[in-house]
Amino acid sequence: VTFVATFPLRFDEKWRFFLPTKWRDDLADGFYLVQGHEDCVAIYSQSGFEKLAALVQSESTTFEDVRAYQRMLGADASEAKADGQGRVIVPPALREYASLDRDIIVTGAIDHGEIWNPQRWEQYRTAQLPQYSKINKQIGQPQGGAK
Amino acid sequence: VTFVATFPLRFDEKWRFFLPTKWRDDLADGFYLVQGHEDCVAIYSQSGFEKLAALVQSESTTFEDVRAYQRMLGADASEAKADGQGRVIVPPALREYASLDRDIIVTGAIDHGEIWNPQRWEQYRTAQLPQYSKINKQIGQPQGGAK
Amino acid sequence: VTFVATFPLRFDEKWRFFLPTKWRDDLADGFYLVQGHEDCVAIYSQSGFEKLAALVQSESTTFEDVRAYQRMLGADASEAKADGQGRVIVPPALREYASLDRDIIVTGAIDHGEIWNPQRWEQYRTAQLPQYSKINKQIGQPQGGAK
Amino acid sequence: VTFVATFPLRFDEKWRFFLPTKWRDDLADGFYLVQGHEDCVAIYSQSGFEKLAALVQSESTTFEDVRAYQRMLGADASEAKADGQGRVIVPPALREYASLDRDIIVTGAIDHGEIWNPQRWEQYRTAQLPQYSKINKQIGQPQGGAK
Amino acid sequence: VTFVATFPLRFDEKWRFFLPTKWRDDLADGFYLVQGHEDCVAIYSQSGFEKLAALVQSESTTFEDVRAYQRMLGADASEAKADGQGRVIVPPALREYASLDRDIIVTGAIDHGEIWNPQRWEQYRTAQLPQYSKINKQIGQPQGGAK
Amino acid sequence: VTFVATFPLRFDEKWRFFLPTKWRDDLADGFYLVQGHEDCVAIYSQSGFEKLAALVQSESTTFEDVRAYQRMLGADASEAKADGQGRVIVPPALREYASLDRDIIVTGAIDHGEIWNPQRWEQYRTAQLPQYSKINKQIGQPQGGAK
Amino acid sequence: VTFVATFPLRFDEKWRFFLPTKWRDDLADGFYLVQGHEDCVAIYSQSGFEKLAALVQSESTTFEDVRAYQRMLGADASEAKADGQGRVIVPPALREYASLDRDIIVTGAIDHGEIWNPQRWEQYRTAQLPQYSKINKQIGQPQGGAK
Amino acid sequence: VTFVATFPLRFDEKWRFFLPTKWRDDLADGFYLVQGHEDCVAIYSQSGFEKLAALVQSESTTFEDVRAYQRMLGADASEAKADGQGRVIVPPALREYASLDRDIIVTGAIDHGEIWNPQRWEQYRTAQLPQYSKINKQIGQPQGGAK
Repeated sequence: VTFVATFPLRFDEKWRFFLPTKWRDDLADGFYLVQGHEDCVAIYSQSGFEKLAALVQSESTTFEDVRAYQRMLGADASEAKADGQGRVIVPPALREYASLDRDIIVTGAIDHGEIWNPQRWEQYRTAQLPQYSKINKQIGQPQGGAK
Repeated sequence: VTFVATFPLRFDEKWRFFLPTKWRDDLADGFYLVQGHEDCVAIYSQSGFEKLAALVQSESTTFEDVRAYQRMLGADASEAKADGQGRVIVPPALREYASLDRDIIVTGAIDHGEIWNPQRWEQYRTAQLPQYSKINKQIGQPQGGAK
Repeated sequence: VTFVATFPLRFDEKWRFFLPTKWRDDLADGFYLVQGHEDCVAIYSQSGFEKLAALVQSESTTFEDVRAYQRMLGADASEAKADGQGRVIVPPALREYASLDRDIIVTGAIDHGEIWNPQRWEQYRTAQLPQYSKINKQIGQPQGGAK
Repeated sequence: VTFVATFPLRFDEKWRFFLPTKWRDDLADGFYLVQGHEDCVAIYSQSGFEKLAALVQSESTTFEDVRAYQRMLGADASEAKADGQGRVIVPPALREYASLDRDIIVTGAIDHGEIWNPQRWEQYRTAQLPQYSKINKQIGQPQGGAK
Repeated sequence: VTFVATFPLRFDEKWRFFLPTKWRDDLADGFYLVQGHEDCVAIYSQSGFEKLAALVQSESTTFEDVRAYQRMLGADASEAKADGQGRVIVPPALREYASLDRDIIVTGAIDHGEIWNPQRWEQYRTAQLPQYSKINKQIGQPQGGAK
Repeated sequence: VTFVATFPLRFDEKWRFFLPTKWRDDLADGFYLVQGHEDCVAIYSQSGFEKLAALVQSESTTFEDVRAYQRMLGADASEAKADGQGRVIVPPALREYASLDRDIIVTGAIDHGEIWNPQRWEQYRTAQLPQYSKINKQIGQPQGGAK
Repeated sequence: VTFVATFPLRFDEKWRFFLPTKWRDDLADGFYLVQGHEDCVAIYSQSGFEKLAALVQSESTTFEDVRAYQRMLGADASEAKADGQGRVIVPPALREYASLDRDIIVTGAIDHGEIWNPQRWEQYRTAQLPQYSKINKQIGQPQGGAK
Repeated sequence: VTFVATFPLRFDEKWRFFLPTKWRDDLADGFYLVQGHEDCVAIYSQSGFEKLAALVQSESTTFEDVRAYQRMLGADASEAKADGQGRVIVPPALREYASLDRDIIVTGAIDHGEIWNPQRWEQYRTAQLPQYSKINKQIGQPQGGAK
């Protein structure tokens, strides 16, 4: 598991940030920056993105929401690489999507990393933590829906 | 994953466009141009099209919508190859199907590429992105339908 | 995938037509001409017909519609071979079944080819294409029916 | 696939008919003549009959219709062999079951052959062909029944 | 498939009958005579009885009808062997169970043979044959019952 | 299949009975005497008891009826061995459970043997045999119960 | 199957009891004493406890009753070993949980052993035995509940 | 099974506690301290955390509760290692989350360990133990919900 822990970081003047040291090995051959859900930027390793992509591939291409998901995921994805010092540039389109200014929260989400606007992260975490602590349901299925 | 990122491009006077450089390796042995859903042109590698075809093959041939899907997919599909400079010609029938003029958007949809009319792409993206960001459902299943 | 693209062709005086060049390799060892659905003639390679046959074999022989399907498929099927120039004769019974006159449309349906009366093909295509473009359902299941 | 095409044939004075040439190889080691559904005589190769038998074997022996099916299939089945000229004798009991006189229709049903009274065959075919052409359902399941 | 065809036979004074010649190989190492359903005597080869037994073994031993089935099947089963001339003795208990007198019908039921009282067989066959000929259902499931 | 046939036997003065000769090989290394359902004594070979035990093991230990079944099966089970003459002692607790006096019926139940009080066996058999003969249901599931 | 039979035993002054001889081999490398259901003490071999543990592991950790089960099972489990004479000490906490005084019943429950207060065991057995004898249901599923 | 038994322990002045001796081998290469459910701190071995992580990975990333679970689990997870004496430091954020003061209860939960505030543990245990003892349901499924 590469992506754990939380890092309060800051973009430099060129909108670069330092990748957490423990993540660098898995991301050494390049990685993907994509639009994350809940308006963050998601960081996927090559193999992590392959896995995600495999889930949304052509077998359901006759459903319009599968097509929309593939297109939104693919169209703004951007291949990236850290420089020799471990710095990564986040493209303006993704910064805008995630409302990122100089201060950022880089946080581990088990199979990928994420970059958040600190205020949004705090709000999100405050809302979610109590439910996490007492969780009592099968996660990954819509609330009111029968299987 | 070959097909990511978005490229604003332009057909030359012979209705050719340059394949994105990163896509060329996977498409080097030829590929398929087919009618894409939502009125775009889809670009499938040999193996990508094989996979798509496998999903709509003869085991359901007793259903009329399977037959219609196979015929619409097959009848206007066209095998293509990039020239030495990486340029590809889009046949008039497919340009007309997708309402393509000189300016085009070439965009990655994870397991295939697509060519869009820029206005249509912008409309489509604007409509879909908010749903993508907050998505909370199993994609690939009709909204009101029981499994 | 052998069977893509559309070819407007014409029978010669002996009711022969030229097989599309790209299809000839897969059909070189002989093939099957059978009654196609929606009143066309279907062209199956040896292995394609084996696959189709496998789907309707004896495991459901206690259902009368399976028996009827097997008999209709089998009774008028005809083994064929292209001559040295790639020409194929379509037997009168199948021409009559599909309302074929001199002008024909030969069209690819992914896992088999088909021969259509041009007017019927045009009508069929006009009716089906809009549904194909916006398709949003699991194909291969009856509309109103529970699984 | 051995059993395709239709052959209008005639019994000789000893109630023998000539097996279609293309079927002889698969039936060379002997075969089974059994009561066919819809009152014809069915011709199964050794392996074809093995497959059919496997479907109705002992695992459902606690159901009376399985027992009845096994007994009806087994009790009048008859092992047969073509003579040196490819002629086959149909036993009187099976001729009577299928209302066969001198003229017969021998027809391919994909995984087995069948011998029909010509009038019955014509009636059957006329009734079934339109449904075959436009078929739109999962075959092999009773119309009004839930799975 | 060992057990096909019908043989009108007769017990000798020692209540022996001749096994059909074609069945002898499979029954050479001994076999089982058991109470057959619909009041006949069933003949199972060693392996055929093993298969039947496997279906009613201990995994459902908490159901009283499974226990009853196992006990009825087991308690009167009798291991038998043909003598050098192929004759088999049917024990009095089984003859009584199946109402067998001197004349018997020995008939093939695909995966086992059966011995019937001729009158009962004729009645049974007359009742079942029409349903067999037009069969249109999944056999092996009770009519009115949901799965 | 070891356990077939029925043997009317009698305990000797030491409450021993002779194991049926054909059962001795499978029981040579010792076996289990356990409380049988319907108030008999059940005889399981080592491997037969292993199979039965495997069905009621820990995966459902959170259900109280599984726990009760395991405890009732286990607490009075007794490992036994035939003596050199093939005689077996039935412990008093099991004799009492099954209401066994001097005369007993030893009967085969396919995957195990059973020891019955003769009157109880006769009653049981008389009640069950007609249902066995005409059986028409999936055994092992309660009549009125949903799956 | 290690755990069968019933042993009325008695703790010595140090609250030790002698493991049944036949159980000692399987428990030779140490074992687990855990809180048993219905207020007894359960004895699991290493591998038996591994199997039980595997059933309640992390895949359902989002359900609060799974977490409670894991914690109750784990928190008072105690690793034990018999001394050279085969004696085992039961810790006070478990004795108290199971209301054990000097006299105990050690009983086999197929995949584990149990230690009971004799009065409780007698009550439990008296209540359960009649249901065991006539059992007619799938065990391991709640009475009134749909699957 | 590494994690059984209960240990009342106490943090030293540097908020370190001694890992139970029996747990040290499995945790020798480092481990994870994460937010445990019901407000404790959970201790997972490397492989235990891999397993947990595998359950909440990207295949359900289109559900917002899966994303929330991954983020809450990942963001505060912390990799740890015992020092040469087997002492572990618990970071302040996790101590605060679990309301830990000097006295703690370290308890085994089968596939992971947990650190509790002693009062909370006592309350939790008192509430859960009676339900554990008489448990009669499939654990891991919501009470009122259909599957």
